[in-house]
Amino acid sequence: MNQTNRKAIMKNSLYIVIVGCGRLGSLLANRLSHSGHSIVVIDRDEATFNDLSSDYSGFRLEGDATQMAVLKMAKLKNADVLFAATHEDNVNLMVAQVAKKIFHVPHVLARVFDPRREQVFDQLGIETISPTSVAAEMFLMAVASGHEGGSGAPS
Amino acid sequence: MNQTNRKAIMKNSLYIVIVGCGRLGSLLANRLSHSGHSIVVIDRDEATFNDLSSDYSGFRLEGDATQMAVLKMAKLKNADVLFAATHEDNVNLMVAQVAKKIFHVPHVLARVFDPRREQVFDQLGIETISPTSVAAEMFLMAVASGHEGGSGAPS
Repeated sequence: MNQTNRKAIMKNSLYIVIVGCGRLGSLLANRLSHSGHSIVVIDRDEATFNDLSSDYSGFRLEGDATQMAVLKMAKLKNADVLFAATHEDNVNLMVAQVAKKIFHVPHVLARVFDPRREQVFDQLGIETISPTSVAAEMFLMAVASGHEGGSGAPS
Repeated sequence: MNQTNRKAIMKNSLYIVIVGCGRLGSLLANRLSHSGHSIVVIDRDEATFNDLSSDYSGFRLEGDATQMAVLKMAKLKNADVLFAATHEDNVNLMVAQVAKKIFHVPHVLARVFDPRREQVFDQLGIETISPTSVAAEMFLMAVASGHEGGSGAPS
């Protein structure tokens, strides 16, 4: 366990940078801020910050996270976790790689919409979460369970 | 268990209508067709059918699934399962409700992007899968496990 993590556990709070303040980014920012973590949310569009709840106590940073200057302003080198959650897979990949390789953030995750890109991300050592794949799995499970055990529809 | 399900199990194959042939719709169509189920995919944009694999053996139906005529052409009343997987929550809600209330499809699922709409869908008796909520849960779990057990980063 590295220094950052040990410190994180000691203080019981993480420094988390979230790129993209859409539905997912804002949902995470609100929940993690509520849990007592220190959050910075970055988005190019200031209007997206309206989705942050009134008790969100983190920072809002308007800017393009593919620019080094913006990531430096977010103090990314101090971050315990980075989550790349914009709507563009390629932006998420770039930001995740910069966070990992240049700022040495210990825990980097990226959202990837296109399941065909997951393998590329994997090979580049980026942990991914694919809403498409997850939704597909959930649907397939629902079909399988309805198939075996009845659909729950009125007979 | 109703007649449709009993028949489905006997024939070990379901008749599944998928609305929306985007990433999720096409992924499901390919997998479920490969598993031997009978599939109809509906999309307004014929170009989306290019994402169907070469061994996809189901039907393609170009049209607007909010039109009754299109759903009738898809023989929705014979369907065991309907999945509303377009990119528009409102379209998914409408199609899911029509499938449930008018065509009496036993198993109806809808994708919903906006987690704030899940409750509305729920109250209307539509089973939902929200990629946003699922991705958020997965990310929160990843943060929690990194937090407790170390991030797996080099020390």
